[in-house]
Amino acid sequence: MSGTVYIVGAGPGDPKLITVRGAEVLGRADVVVFDRLASPALLDLAPTDAERIYAGKEPGRPAMSQERISALLVERALAGEEVVRLKGGDPFVFGRGGEEALACARARVPFEVVPGVTSAIAAPAVAGIPVTHRGVARSLAVVTASGAHGEDVDLTAVAIATDTLVLLMAAGKLERTCEALIAAGRSADEPAALIGWATTPEERSVFGSLADLPALCLAASVGPPAVLVVGRVVSLARDLAPAARRGDEDRSPPEPHGPVANAVLTS
Amino acid sequence: MSGTVYIVGAGPGDPKLITVRGAEVLGRADVVVFDRLASPALLDLAPTDAERIYAGKEPGRPAMSQERISALLVERALAGEEVVRLKGGDPFVFGRGGEEALACARARVPFEVVPGVTSAIAAPAVAGIPVTHRGVARSLAVVTASGAHGEDVDLTAVAIATDTLVLLMAAGKLERTCEALIAAGRSADEPAALIGWATTPEERSVFGSLADLPALCLAASVGPPAVLVVGRVVSLARDLAPAARRGDEDRSPPEPHGPVANAVLTS
Repeated sequence: MSGTVYIVGAGPGDPKLITVRGAEVLGRADVVVFDRLASPALLDLAPTDAERIYAGKEPGRPAMSQERISALLVERALAGEEVVRLKGGDPFVFGRGGEEALACARARVPFEVVPGVTSAIAAPAVAGIPVTHRGVARSLAVVTASGAHGEDVDLTAVAIATDTLVLLMAAGKLERTCEALIAAGRSADEPAALIGWATTPEERSVFGSLADLPALCLAASVGPPAVLVVGRVVSLARDLAPAARRGDEDRSPPEPHGPVANAVLTS
Repeated sequence: MSGTVYIVGAGPGDPKLITVRGAEVLGRADVVVFDRLASPALLDLAPTDAERIYAGKEPGRPAMSQERISALLVERALAGEEVVRLKGGDPFVFGRGGEEALACARARVPFEVVPGVTSAIAAPAVAGIPVTHRGVARSLAVVTASGAHGEDVDLTAVAIATDTLVLLMAAGKLERTCEALIAAGRSADEPAALIGWATTPEERSVFGSLADLPALCLAASVGPPAVLVVGRVVSLARDLAPAARRGDEDRSPPEPHGPVANAVLTS
Protein backbone atom coordinates (compact mmCIF):
# COMPACT_ATOMS: atom_id res chain seq x y z
CA MET A 1 0.00 0.00 0.00
CA SER A 2 1.21 3.47 -0.85
CA GLY A 3 2.28 5.86 1.86
CA THR A 4 1.18 9.50 1.94
CA VAL A 5 3.15 12.59 1.00
CA TYR A 6 2.61 15.48 3.41
CA ILE A 7 3.62 18.80 1.87
CA VAL A 8 4.11 20.81 5.04
CA GLY A 9 4.72 24.50 5.58
CA ALA A 10 7.39 24.85 8.26
CA GLY A 11 6.54 28.49 8.93
CA PRO A 12 8.92 31.45 8.86
CA GLY A 13 11.75 30.11 11.01
CA ASP A 14 10.81 29.80 14.67
CA PRO A 15 10.09 26.07 15.06
CA LYS A 16 7.10 26.88 17.26
CA LEU A 17 5.44 28.58 14.29
CA ILE A 18 4.80 25.28 12.53
CA THR A 19 1.17 24.17 12.79
CA VAL A 20 0.05 21.49 15.21
CA ARG A 21 -0.88 19.38 12.17
CA GLY A 22 2.55 19.87 10.64
CA ALA A 23 4.28 18.85 13.87
CA GLU A 24 1.97 15.84 14.14
CA VAL A 25 2.80 14.42 10.71
CA LEU A 26 6.51 15.13 11.25
CA GLY A 27 6.29 13.07 14.42
CA ARG A 28 5.41 9.95 12.47
CA ALA A 29 7.43 10.44 9.28
CA ASP A 30 9.53 7.67 7.80
CA VAL A 31 11.40 10.19 5.71
CA VAL A 32 11.70 13.99 5.82
CA VAL A 33 12.80 15.86 2.70
CA PHE A 34 13.80 19.33 3.85
CA ASP A 35 15.04 22.68 2.54
CA ARG A 36 17.95 24.90 3.45
CA LEU A 37 16.03 27.07 5.87
CA ALA A 38 14.38 24.27 7.83
CA SER A 39 15.07 24.59 11.54
CA PRO A 40 17.09 21.76 13.12
CA ALA A 41 14.57 21.79 15.97
CA LEU A 42 11.84 20.85 13.49
CA LEU A 43 13.85 17.96 12.11
CA ASP A 44 14.15 16.75 15.69
CA LEU A 45 10.37 16.37 15.79
CA ALA A 46 10.67 13.40 13.42
CA PRO A 47 11.32 9.97 14.92
CA THR A 48 14.99 9.31 15.69
CA ASP A 49 15.20 6.64 13.00
CA ALA A 50 13.44 8.66 10.31
CA GLU A 51 15.56 9.34 7.26
CA ARG A 52 16.39 13.02 6.70
CA ILE A 53 17.14 14.07 3.14
CA TYR A 54 18.50 17.51 2.34
CA ALA A 55 17.04 19.00 -0.82
CA GLY A 56 18.01 22.62 -0.37
CA LYS A 57 19.51 24.90 -2.91
CA GLU A 58 22.61 26.85 -1.98
CA PRO A 59 24.34 29.49 -4.05
CA GLY A 60 27.19 28.00 -6.06
CA ARG A 61 26.46 24.38 -5.25
CA PRO A 62 24.64 21.82 -7.38
CA ALA A 63 21.17 21.32 -6.00
CA MET A 64 18.68 18.53 -6.32
CA SER A 65 16.48 19.55 -9.24
CA GLN A 66 12.79 20.20 -8.64
CA GLU A 67 11.98 17.24 -10.90
CA ARG A 68 14.24 15.00 -8.83
CA ILE A 69 12.67 16.19 -5.58
CA SER A 70 9.17 15.49 -6.89
CA ALA A 71 10.22 12.06 -8.15
CA LEU A 72 11.80 11.25 -4.79
CA LEU A 73 8.60 12.06 -2.91
CA VAL A 74 6.59 9.83 -5.22
CA GLU A 75 9.10 6.94 -5.13
CA ARG A 76 9.23 6.87 -1.37
CA ALA A 77 5.47 7.01 -0.97
CA LEU A 78 5.00 4.22 -3.52
CA ALA A 79 7.47 2.20 -1.45
CA GLY A 80 5.01 2.51 1.43
CA GLU A 81 6.74 5.23 3.39
CA GLU A 82 5.13 8.19 5.13
CA VAL A 83 6.88 11.14 3.53
CA VAL A 84 7.06 14.67 4.91
CA ARG A 85 8.18 17.36 2.49
CA LEU A 86 9.13 20.21 4.83
CA LYS A 87 9.19 23.61 3.16
CA GLY A 88 9.89 27.05 4.60
CA GLY A 89 6.87 29.31 5.06
CA ASP A 90 3.77 28.11 3.22
CA PRO A 91 4.21 25.46 0.52
CA PHE A 92 2.10 27.36 -2.02
CA VAL A 93 3.63 30.83 -1.62
CA PHE A 94 6.57 30.70 -4.01
CA GLY A 95 7.44 27.33 -2.52
CA ARG A 96 6.91 25.17 -5.62
CA GLY A 97 4.66 22.98 -3.50
CA GLY A 98 2.16 22.99 -6.36
CA GLU A 99 4.61 21.17 -8.58
CA GLU A 100 5.19 18.54 -5.92
CA ALA A 101 1.47 18.13 -5.34
CA LEU A 102 0.90 17.71 -9.08
CA ALA A 103 3.60 15.03 -9.24
CA CYS A 104 1.79 13.13 -6.47
CA ALA A 105 -1.60 13.55 -8.14
CA ARG A 106 -0.28 12.32 -11.48
CA ALA A 107 1.26 9.26 -9.83
CA ARG A 108 -1.96 8.67 -7.88
CA VAL A 109 -0.05 8.98 -4.63
CA PRO A 110 -2.18 10.26 -1.75
CA PHE A 111 -1.00 13.60 -0.49
CA GLU A 112 -2.03 16.26 1.97
CA VAL A 113 -1.03 19.90 1.84
CA VAL A 114 -0.52 21.33 5.34
CA PRO A 115 -0.53 25.12 5.03
CA GLY A 116 2.02 27.11 6.97
CA VAL A 117 2.59 30.60 8.30
CA THR A 118 4.08 32.52 5.39
CA SER A 119 7.09 34.72 6.07
CA ALA A 120 5.50 37.27 3.73
CA ILE A 121 3.13 38.14 6.58
CA ALA A 122 4.97 36.88 9.66
CA ALA A 123 8.30 38.60 9.00
CA PRO A 124 6.71 42.06 8.92
CA ALA A 125 4.54 41.10 11.93
CA VAL A 126 7.43 40.29 14.22
CA ALA A 127 9.13 43.51 13.19
CA GLY A 128 6.04 45.39 14.37
CA ILE A 129 4.43 45.83 10.94
CA PRO A 130 0.84 44.71 10.40
CA VAL A 131 0.51 44.18 6.63
CA THR A 132 -3.03 45.57 6.81
CA HIS A 133 -4.28 48.17 9.25
CA ARG A 134 -7.54 50.04 9.37
CA GLY A 135 -7.23 53.48 7.84
CA VAL A 136 -3.68 52.78 6.66
CA ALA A 137 -3.67 49.74 4.36
CA ARG A 138 -6.42 47.55 3.10
CA SER A 139 -4.72 45.74 0.27
CA LEU A 140 -1.62 43.63 0.13
CA ALA A 141 0.44 42.21 -2.70
CA VAL A 142 3.08 39.53 -2.35
CA VAL A 143 5.58 39.08 -5.16
CA THR A 144 9.01 37.65 -5.70
CA ALA A 145 11.77 39.88 -7.00
CA SER A 146 13.60 36.93 -8.55
CA GLY A 147 12.41 34.40 -11.09
CA ALA A 148 13.19 30.69 -11.04
CA HIS A 149 16.70 31.27 -12.36
CA GLY A 150 17.43 34.35 -10.26
CA GLU A 151 16.48 36.76 -13.04
CA ASP A 152 14.77 40.07 -12.24
CA VAL A 153 10.99 40.09 -12.34
CA ASP A 154 9.12 42.98 -13.94
CA LEU A 155 7.46 44.75 -11.01
CA THR A 156 5.75 47.49 -13.01
CA ALA A 157 2.20 46.14 -12.84
CA VAL A 158 2.22 45.35 -9.16
CA ALA A 159 4.34 48.22 -7.83
CA ILE A 160 1.59 50.69 -7.01
CA ALA A 161 -1.52 48.51 -7.07
CA THR A 162 -1.78 47.86 -3.34
CA ASP A 163 -1.23 49.84 -0.16
CA THR A 164 1.26 47.32 1.18
CA LEU A 165 3.78 45.52 -0.99
CA VAL A 166 5.78 42.55 0.24
CA LEU A 167 8.70 41.30 -1.83
CA LEU A 168 10.42 37.99 -1.32
CA MET A 169 13.87 37.16 -2.66
CA ALA A 170 14.70 40.86 -2.97
CA ALA A 171 17.51 41.20 -0.45
CA GLY A 172 20.25 40.15 -2.85
CA LYS A 173 19.26 42.88 -5.33
CA LEU A 174 17.81 45.46 -3.02
CA GLU A 175 19.06 48.60 -4.75
CA ARG A 176 17.78 47.48 -8.15
CA THR A 177 14.46 46.42 -6.68
CA CYS A 178 13.85 49.66 -4.81
CA GLU A 179 14.82 51.68 -7.89
CA ALA A 180 12.40 49.66 -10.01
CA LEU A 181 9.59 50.33 -7.55
CA ILE A 182 10.32 54.06 -7.54
CA ALA A 183 10.51 54.09 -11.36
CA ALA A 184 7.12 52.35 -11.42
CA GLY A 185 5.57 55.10 -9.33
CA ARG A 186 6.04 54.32 -5.67
CA SER A 187 7.26 57.31 -3.72
CA ALA A 188 10.96 57.39 -2.87
CA ASP A 189 9.97 58.66 0.58
CA GLU A 190 7.68 55.75 1.30
CA PRO A 191 8.55 53.80 4.46
CA ALA A 192 10.22 50.47 3.80
CA ALA A 193 11.81 47.77 5.90
CA LEU A 194 13.95 44.71 5.37
CA ILE A 195 13.53 41.90 7.89
CA GLY A 196 16.28 39.29 7.82
CA TRP A 197 16.08 35.83 9.40
CA ALA A 198 12.63 36.67 10.77
CA THR A 199 11.49 34.83 13.90
CA THR A 200 14.94 33.28 14.46
CA PRO A 201 17.60 34.29 16.99
CA GLU A 202 19.46 35.99 14.08
CA GLU A 203 16.50 38.25 13.25
CA ARG A 204 17.44 41.80 12.31
CA SER A 205 15.29 44.54 10.83
CA VAL A 206 16.36 47.68 9.01
CA PHE A 207 13.94 50.58 8.54
CA GLY A 208 14.17 53.43 6.09
CA SER A 209 12.60 54.88 2.98
CA LEU A 210 12.43 53.19 -0.38
CA ALA A 211 15.29 55.47 -1.45
CA ASP A 212 17.69 54.96 1.44
CA LEU A 213 16.93 51.41 2.56
CA PRO A 214 19.51 49.71 0.29
CA ALA A 215 22.40 51.78 1.70
CA LEU A 216 21.16 51.28 5.26
CA CYS A 217 20.98 47.51 4.77
CA LEU A 218 24.45 47.45 3.26
CA ALA A 219 25.82 49.41 6.21
CA ALA A 220 24.07 47.08 8.65
CA SER A 221 25.12 43.96 6.72
CA VAL A 222 21.55 42.67 6.55
CA GLY A 223 20.99 40.52 3.49
CA PRO A 224 19.25 37.32 2.40
CA PRO A 225 17.17 35.56 3.50
CA ALA A 226 14.99 38.57 4.09
CA VAL A 227 11.58 40.03 3.42
CA LEU A 228 11.12 43.53 2.00
CA VAL A 229 7.97 45.40 2.95
CA VAL A 230 6.92 48.75 1.52
CA GLY A 231 4.04 50.97 2.58
CA ARG A 232 2.66 53.28 5.22
CA VAL A 233 2.11 50.35 7.60
CA VAL A 234 5.88 50.22 8.06
CA SER A 235 5.60 53.36 10.21
CA LEU A 236 3.49 51.49 12.75
CA ALA A 237 6.63 49.66 13.84
CA ARG A 238 7.66 52.85 15.66
CA ASP A 239 5.03 51.96 18.24
CA LEU A 240 4.83 48.22 17.81
CA ALA A 241 8.38 46.97 17.32
CA PRO A 242 9.96 47.46 20.73
CA ALA A 243 6.92 46.10 22.50
CA ALA A 244 6.57 43.17 20.13
CA ARG A 245 10.17 42.22 20.75
CA ARG A 246 9.52 41.69 24.41
CA GLY A 247 7.97 38.40 23.48
CA ASP A 248 11.18 37.17 21.91
CA GLU A 249 12.91 35.98 25.07
CA ASP A 250 10.13 33.53 25.30
CA ARG A 251 10.53 32.37 21.74
CA SER A 252 13.72 30.38 21.74
CA PRO A 253 13.57 27.09 19.89
CA PRO A 254 12.23 24.19 21.95
CA GLU A 255 14.68 21.68 23.37
CA PRO A 256 15.15 18.76 20.97
CA HIS A 257 12.73 16.15 22.29
CA GLY A 258 11.69 18.68 24.92
CA PRO A 259 8.09 19.39 25.83
CA VAL A 260 6.85 20.38 22.37
CA ALA A 261 8.59 17.52 20.59
CA ASN A 262 7.42 15.00 23.17
CA ALA A 263 3.95 16.34 23.03
CA VAL A 264 3.79 15.67 19.34
CA LEU A 265 5.58 12.35 19.42
CA THR A 266 3.22 10.96 22.02
CA SER A 267 0.03 12.22 20.42
CA MET B 1 2.96 42.74 37.75
CA SER B 2 1.24 42.99 34.41
CA GLY B 3 0.26 39.91 32.47
CA THR B 4 0.93 39.53 28.75
CA VAL B 5 -1.52 39.84 25.88
CA TYR B 6 -0.99 37.18 23.20
CA ILE B 7 -2.59 38.17 19.91
CA VAL B 8 -2.90 34.77 18.33
CA GLY B 9 -3.86 33.70 14.83
CA ALA B 10 -6.17 30.70 15.12
CA GLY B 11 -5.67 29.70 11.50
CA PRO B 12 -8.37 29.12 8.90
CA GLY B 13 -10.71 26.83 10.81
CA ASP B 14 -9.25 23.37 11.39
CA PRO B 15 -8.04 23.54 15.00
CA LYS B 16 -4.90 21.63 14.04
CA LEU B 17 -3.88 24.54 11.83
CA ILE B 18 -3.09 26.74 14.80
CA THR B 19 0.65 27.06 15.45
CA VAL B 20 2.39 25.15 18.20
CA ARG B 21 3.15 28.51 19.83
CA GLY B 22 -0.49 29.54 19.63
CA ALA B 23 -1.62 26.28 21.22
CA GLU B 24 1.04 26.66 23.89
CA VAL B 25 -0.07 30.10 25.05
CA LEU B 26 -3.73 29.04 24.89
CA GLY B 27 -2.83 26.20 27.24
CA ARG B 28 -1.87 28.60 30.00
CA ALA B 29 -4.34 31.43 29.43
CA ASP B 30 -6.27 32.97 32.29
CA VAL B 31 -8.71 34.50 29.84
CA VAL B 32 -9.43 33.90 26.15
CA VAL B 33 -11.15 36.62 24.12
CA PHE B 34 -12.41 34.95 20.96
CA ASP B 35 -14.19 35.68 17.69
CA ARG B 36 -17.20 34.18 16.00
CA LEU B 37 -15.25 31.75 13.84
CA ALA B 38 -13.04 30.35 16.59
CA SER B 39 -13.24 26.57 16.75
CA PRO B 40 -14.68 25.12 19.98
CA ALA B 41 -11.82 22.60 19.91
CA LEU B 42 -9.36 25.49 20.21
CA LEU B 43 -11.19 26.96 23.18
CA ASP B 44 -10.85 23.55 24.79
CA LEU B 45 -7.07 23.94 24.68
CA ALA B 46 -7.35 26.60 27.38
CA PRO B 47 -7.36 25.47 31.01
CA THR B 48 -10.79 24.36 32.24
CA ASP B 49 -11.05 27.29 34.62
CA ALA B 50 -9.91 29.91 32.09
CA GLU B 51 -12.49 32.57 31.41
CA ARG B 52 -13.83 32.58 27.83
CA ILE B 53 -15.17 35.88 26.53
CA TYR B 54 -17.02 36.08 23.24
CA ALA B 55 -16.17 39.19 21.24
CA GLY B 56 -17.52 38.21 17.85
CA LYS B 57 -19.61 40.25 15.53
CA GLU B 58 -22.75 38.73 14.11
CA PRO B 59 -25.05 40.24 11.52
CA GLY B 60 -27.92 42.05 13.17
CA ARG B 61 -26.66 41.78 16.72
CA PRO B 62 -24.89 44.41 18.78
CA ALA B 63 -21.20 43.53 18.95
CA MET B 64 -18.48 44.48 21.33
CA SER B 65 -16.82 47.51 19.73
CA GLN B 66 -13.20 47.26 18.68
CA GLU B 67 -12.35 49.94 21.24
CA ARG B 68 -14.03 47.90 23.96
CA ILE B 69 -12.19 44.74 22.94
CA SER B 70 -8.83 46.54 23.01
CA ALA B 71 -9.64 48.07 26.39
CA LEU B 72 -10.65 44.67 27.75
CA LEU B 73 -7.32 43.10 26.73
CA VAL B 74 -5.40 45.90 28.42
CA GLU B 75 -7.52 45.85 31.60
CA ARG B 76 -7.12 42.13 32.08
CA ALA B 77 -3.37 42.17 31.48
CA LEU B 78 -2.94 45.08 33.90
CA ALA B 79 -4.83 42.99 36.45
CA GLY B 80 -2.07 40.41 36.12
CA GLU B 81 -3.84 37.93 33.86
CA GLU B 82 -2.36 36.06 30.90
CA VAL B 83 -4.67 37.08 28.07
CA VAL B 84 -5.08 35.28 24.75
CA ARG B 85 -6.82 37.20 22.00
CA LEU B 86 -7.78 34.43 19.57
CA LYS B 87 -8.46 35.66 16.06
CA GLY B 88 -9.38 33.75 12.90
CA GLY B 89 -6.61 33.36 10.32
CA ASP B 90 -3.67 35.70 10.90
CA PRO B 91 -4.15 38.63 13.29
CA PHE B 92 -2.63 41.16 10.88
CA VAL B 93 -4.51 40.15 7.70
CA PHE B 94 -7.72 42.17 7.99
CA GLY B 95 -7.92 41.01 11.58
CA ARG B 96 -7.58 44.38 13.28
CA GLY B 97 -4.83 42.84 15.36
CA GLY B 98 -2.76 45.95 14.72
CA GLU B 99 -5.25 48.07 16.63
CA GLU B 100 -5.16 45.70 19.57
CA ALA B 101 -1.36 45.62 19.53
CA LEU B 102 -1.27 49.43 19.48
CA ALA B 103 -3.61 49.58 22.46
CA CYS B 104 -1.25 47.31 24.38
CA ALA B 105 1.83 49.29 23.34
CA ARG B 106 0.23 52.58 24.38
CA ALA B 107 -0.72 51.15 27.79
CA ARG B 108 2.78 49.66 28.13
CA VAL B 109 1.30 46.20 28.43
CA PRO B 110 3.64 43.46 27.18
CA PHE B 111 2.25 41.67 24.16
CA GLU B 112 3.27 39.07 21.66
CA VAL B 113 1.84 38.63 18.20
CA VAL B 114 1.64 34.96 17.23
CA PRO B 115 1.16 34.80 13.46
CA GLY B 116 -1.33 32.34 12.05
CA VAL B 117 -2.13 30.55 8.82
CA THR B 118 -4.21 33.00 6.82
CA SER B 119 -7.34 31.70 5.13
CA ALA B 120 -6.40 33.88 2.15
CA ILE B 121 -3.79 31.26 1.28
CA ALA B 122 -5.02 28.15 3.09
CA ALA B 123 -8.60 28.19 1.78
CA PRO B 124 -7.47 28.04 -1.85
CA ALA B 125 -4.82 25.45 -0.88
CA VAL B 126 -7.24 22.94 0.55
CA ALA B 127 -9.45 23.37 -2.50
CA GLY B 128 -6.48 22.36 -4.65
CA ILE B 129 -5.41 25.86 -5.65
CA PRO B 130 -1.82 26.97 -5.10
CA VAL B 131 -1.93 30.79 -5.02
CA THR B 132 1.40 30.87 -6.85
CA HIS B 133 2.67 28.29 -9.32
CA ARG B 134 5.67 28.34 -11.58
CA GLY B 135 4.72 29.41 -15.09
CA VAL B 136 1.18 30.23 -14.05
CA ALA B 137 1.21 32.85 -11.29
CA ARG B 138 4.02 34.69 -9.63
CA SER B 139 2.18 37.49 -7.93
CA LEU B 140 -0.64 37.52 -5.45
CA ALA B 141 -2.88 40.22 -4.06
CA VAL B 142 -5.11 39.90 -1.03
CA VAL B 143 -7.89 42.42 -0.56
CA THR B 144 -11.16 42.72 1.27
CA ALA B 145 -14.32 43.39 -0.69
CA SER B 146 -15.97 45.05 2.30
CA GLY B 147 -14.84 48.00 4.38
CA ALA B 148 -15.16 48.31 8.14
CA HIS B 149 -18.86 49.13 7.89
CA GLY B 150 -19.66 46.62 5.17
CA GLU B 151 -19.38 49.16 2.37
CA ASP B 152 -18.01 48.17 -1.02
CA VAL B 153 -14.30 48.72 -1.55
CA ASP B 154 -13.02 50.16 -4.82
CA LEU B 155 -11.20 47.26 -6.50
CA THR B 156 -10.10 49.11 -9.64
CA ALA B 157 -6.43 49.53 -8.77
CA VAL B 158 -5.87 45.99 -7.60
CA ALA B 159 -8.11 44.09 -10.01
CA ILE B 160 -5.58 43.31 -12.73
CA ALA B 161 -2.27 44.02 -10.99
CA THR B 162 -1.45 40.44 -10.00
CA ASP B 163 -1.80 37.00 -11.53
CA THR B 164 -3.77 35.69 -8.57
CA LEU B 165 -6.34 37.74 -6.70
CA VAL B 166 -7.79 36.65 -3.37
CA LEU B 167 -10.78 38.48 -1.95
CA LEU B 168 -11.99 38.18 1.60
CA MET B 169 -15.47 39.17 2.72
CA ALA B 170 -16.78 38.94 -0.83
CA ALA B 171 -19.26 36.08 -0.52
CA GLY B 172 -22.14 38.26 0.63
CA LYS B 173 -21.83 40.49 -2.45
CA LEU B 174 -20.40 38.07 -4.95
CA GLU B 175 -22.23 39.24 -8.04
CA ARG B 176 -21.31 42.89 -7.47
CA THR B 177 -17.71 41.96 -6.72
CA CYS B 178 -17.25 39.80 -9.80
CA GLU B 179 -18.86 42.48 -11.98
CA ALA B 180 -16.52 45.09 -10.54
CA LEU B 181 -13.50 42.94 -11.33
CA ILE B 182 -14.67 42.39 -14.89
CA ALA B 183 -15.36 46.11 -15.29
CA ALA B 184 -11.82 46.79 -14.06
CA GLY B 185 -10.36 44.59 -16.76
CA ARG B 186 -10.23 41.01 -15.53
CA SER B 187 -11.53 38.59 -18.12
CA ALA B 188 -15.07 37.29 -17.61
CA ASP B 189 -13.78 33.86 -18.63
CA GLU B 190 -11.09 33.78 -16.01
CA PRO B 191 -11.27 30.80 -13.64
CA ALA B 192 -12.63 31.64 -10.19
CA ALA B 193 -13.59 29.70 -7.11
CA LEU B 194 -15.40 30.35 -3.86
CA ILE B 195 -14.31 28.25 -0.89
CA GLY B 196 -16.70 28.31 2.04
CA TRP B 197 -15.87 27.21 5.60
CA ALA B 198 -12.41 26.17 4.45
CA THR B 199 -10.65 23.43 6.46
CA THR B 200 -13.76 22.68 8.49
CA PRO B 201 -16.17 19.75 8.12
CA GLU B 202 -18.58 22.17 6.38
CA GLU B 203 -16.07 23.06 3.68
CA ARG B 204 -17.53 23.45 0.21
CA SER B 205 -15.97 24.82 -2.95
CA VAL B 206 -17.63 26.12 -6.08
CA PHE B 207 -15.66 26.51 -9.31
CA GLY B 208 -16.56 28.55 -12.35
CA SER B 209 -15.60 31.63 -14.30
CA LEU B 210 -15.67 35.16 -13.01
CA ALA B 211 -18.90 35.60 -14.99
CA ASP B 212 -20.82 32.53 -13.86
CA LEU B 213 -19.49 31.94 -10.34
CA PRO B 214 -22.12 34.09 -8.56
CA ALA B 215 -25.03 32.11 -10.06
CA LEU B 216 -23.29 28.80 -9.36
CA CYS B 217 -22.71 29.75 -5.72
CA LEU B 218 -26.32 30.84 -5.36
CA ALA B 219 -27.51 27.53 -6.79
CA ALA B 220 -25.19 25.61 -4.48
CA SER B 221 -26.10 27.76 -1.47
CA VAL B 222 -22.46 28.51 -0.69
CA GLY B 223 -22.08 31.86 1.03
CA PRO B 224 -20.12 33.54 3.85
CA PRO B 225 -17.69 32.90 5.41
CA ALA B 226 -15.83 32.23 2.20
CA VAL B 227 -12.75 33.14 0.22
CA LEU B 228 -12.93 34.16 -3.43
CA VAL B 229 -9.92 33.37 -5.60
CA VAL B 230 -9.47 34.50 -9.20
CA GLY B 231 -6.77 33.53 -11.66
CA ARG B 232 -5.33 30.81 -13.84
CA VAL B 233 -4.11 28.89 -10.78
CA VAL B 234 -7.75 27.99 -10.09
CA SER B 235 -7.57 25.52 -13.00
CA LEU B 236 -4.91 23.51 -11.17
CA ALA B 237 -7.64 22.27 -8.84
CA ARG B 238 -8.81 19.98 -11.64
CA ASP B 239 -5.76 17.86 -10.84
CA LEU B 240 -5.18 18.76 -7.22
CA ALA B 241 -8.58 18.99 -5.60
CA PRO B 242 -9.74 15.37 -5.48
CA ALA B 243 -6.34 14.17 -4.35
CA ALA B 244 -5.96 16.89 -1.77
CA ARG B 245 -9.29 15.95 -0.30
CA ARG B 246 -8.11 12.46 0.52
CA GLY B 247 -6.33 14.00 3.44
CA ASP B 248 -9.57 15.28 4.90
CA GLU B 249 -10.71 12.11 6.63
CA ASP B 250 -7.66 12.55 8.73
CA ARG B 251 -8.37 16.15 9.49
CA SER B 252 -11.35 16.04 11.76
CA PRO B 253 -11.09 18.25 14.80
CA PRO B 254 -9.24 16.67 17.70
CA GLU B 255 -11.24 15.33 20.62
CA PRO B 256 -11.57 17.95 23.30
CA HIS B 257 -8.78 17.16 25.71
CA GLY B 258 -7.72 14.40 23.32
CA PRO B 259 -4.14 13.86 22.25
CA VAL B 260 -3.48 17.29 20.79
CA ALA B 261 -5.11 19.15 23.63
CA ASN B 262 -3.37 17.04 26.24
CA ALA B 263 -0.07 17.40 24.48
CA VAL B 264 -0.33 21.15 24.75
CA LEU B 265 -1.71 21.22 28.26
CA THR B 266 1.13 19.11 29.59
CA SER B 267 3.92 20.93 27.78
